[in-house]
Amino acid sequence: MADLDDQQTAAQSWFRQLRDDICAALEAIEDDIGGPGEPGRFVRTAWERPDPSGDGGGGVMSVLKGRVFEKAGVNISTVHGSFSPEFAKQINGADADPRFFATGISLVIHPANPNVPAAHMNTRMLVTTKRWFGGGGDLNPSHPDDAQTAAFHAAYKATCDAHDPGYYEKFRAWAEEYFWIPHRGRHRGVGGIFYDHLDSGDWAADFAFTQAVGATFRDTYPRLVREKMGLAFTPEQRLEQLRYRGLYAEFNLVYDRGTTFGLKTGGNTDAILMSLPPEARWD
Amino acid sequence: MADLDDQQTAAQSWFRQLRDDICAALEAIEDDIGGPGEPGRFVRTAWERPDPSGDGGGGVMSVLKGRVFEKAGVNISTVHGSFSPEFAKQINGADADPRFFATGISLVIHPANPNVPAAHMNTRMLVTTKRWFGGGGDLNPSHPDDAQTAAFHAAYKATCDAHDPGYYEKFRAWAEEYFWIPHRGRHRGVGGIFYDHLDSGDWAADFAFTQAVGATFRDTYPRLVREKMGLAFTPEQRLEQLRYRGLYAEFNLVYDRGTTFGLKTGGNTDAILMSLPPEARWD
Repeated sequence: MADLDDQQTAAQSWFRQLRDDICAALEAIEDDIGGPGEPGRFVRTAWERPDPSGDGGGGVMSVLKGRVFEKAGVNISTVHGSFSPEFAKQINGADADPRFFATGISLVIHPANPNVPAAHMNTRMLVTTKRWFGGGGDLNPSHPDDAQTAAFHAAYKATCDAHDPGYYEKFRAWAEEYFWIPHRGRHRGVGGIFYDHLDSGDWAADFAFTQAVGATFRDTYPRLVREKMGLAFTPEQRLEQLRYRGLYAEFNLVYDRGTTFGLKTGGNTDAILMSLPPEARWD
Repeated sequence: MADLDDQQTAAQSWFRQLRDDICAALEAIEDDIGGPGEPGRFVRTAWERPDPSGDGGGGVMSVLKGRVFEKAGVNISTVHGSFSPEFAKQINGADADPRFFATGISLVIHPANPNVPAAHMNTRMLVTTKRWFGGGGDLNPSHPDDAQTAAFHAAYKATCDAHDPGYYEKFRAWAEEYFWIPHRGRHRGVGGIFYDHLDSGDWAADFAFTQAVGATFRDTYPRLVREKMGLAFTPEQRLEQLRYRGLYAEFNLVYDRGTTFGLKTGGNTDAILMSLPPEARWD
């Protein structure tokens, strides 16, 4: 591993801790639901990033297949190297010097019960000749519940407001734009927040906000799951969930920048496609 | 509908006839397998292409959900209009004059039994200031059978050889390149042929070849289906089939030019995504 500066080390450590906390929260839910089957446990798989220049870093996938969570994946990674010249042009601050460092966490949760919302969260720190944070969290229910949608947004609004009064409206609108699926004329999910290139000039404040975005997910999503995981559901609801997951896969494979960017630039395929649903239908 | 010249009318009529013949062949298979459930029948849905200049043509989707074919879709379409200026630059012969005409057939078949290969075929005629044919056929078994792969290729080789001794090797290699999935380090399926911009200077010969490509599929694929459709299969084979279909969906949504081109340019979403599998797994 290349030498990391204090900010890089701090960010990397936070994402690892957040991963541990979220995995523990989801495993506790697996325990608490009881019933038939064994409680799901995360299985970790490490990967390394090949880099022509030598050490390129890598990551750890954590995947759980359980009773409440049909498939939950939580990835952390810390990678570094040089962008290709063509690619460097597209990246903030990399046109003159193509070297980069990135550390982050990315998670996607596909619950078994159609009443329980699927969810996505990721936060990351990027370093080129510039340095910034990005990320967000969004809720993806196949059967939206207005109260849960409102609670999810309220949690993120409170987190945003504690850092900057303009953040929530800006980042909510950004998610609304980002998760639009033109060919379906609808959004993926019921939104949340999305932000990128966050560099206010105060690194500590931006890091604190990014930590808060992760912590908000950690503290909010498990509560939404627990509210719904005991509800009965019909075969018709399951079918609708599987069709909704088809839409989710379409978005990720056609539009999601992290996915298409990653696949086309030799990223770790298993980690990138961890986001895809365990089962989906187009029928 | 705009006035069509004789070549456009002939091509459109052929694609419609081929659609009828292939649908009939697949419905006959649905009848012949017997057993529980009703034999599947194609259901047709027409669509129109909105065009700022008025009539933009349209198409007809034919979809069957049956006993042998979990989902089979056969689309024909005849569309015309003008490419956007940005788009016209990417299209053969459209840079000076953006008007285009396209007529074709496209089909994707996802059988229920993992022993029966999935398959894809499409052929089309394009007219800008130039005029050409394109298309191909390829086999997509989740459980490849060497004899069936050889038979499929032999049929296309015979068809190609009857028209030009160089076609088979050229078009086989083109399919091999086209259906490569970089992020998985493997191909979608076991190949077939793929060609585009076919304009030998002899329109009648090129049309005859394109007709033969369609007829070869019509005459070969049903035979392969009948060889395998009675075989028993295990739950493990079904699981492998569903995972293979995930790969198929990845290819179509990330790389397939017809799909990504269509989705991003306002094509008919239902017709374009008819290719997606009825059920798929990423687990």
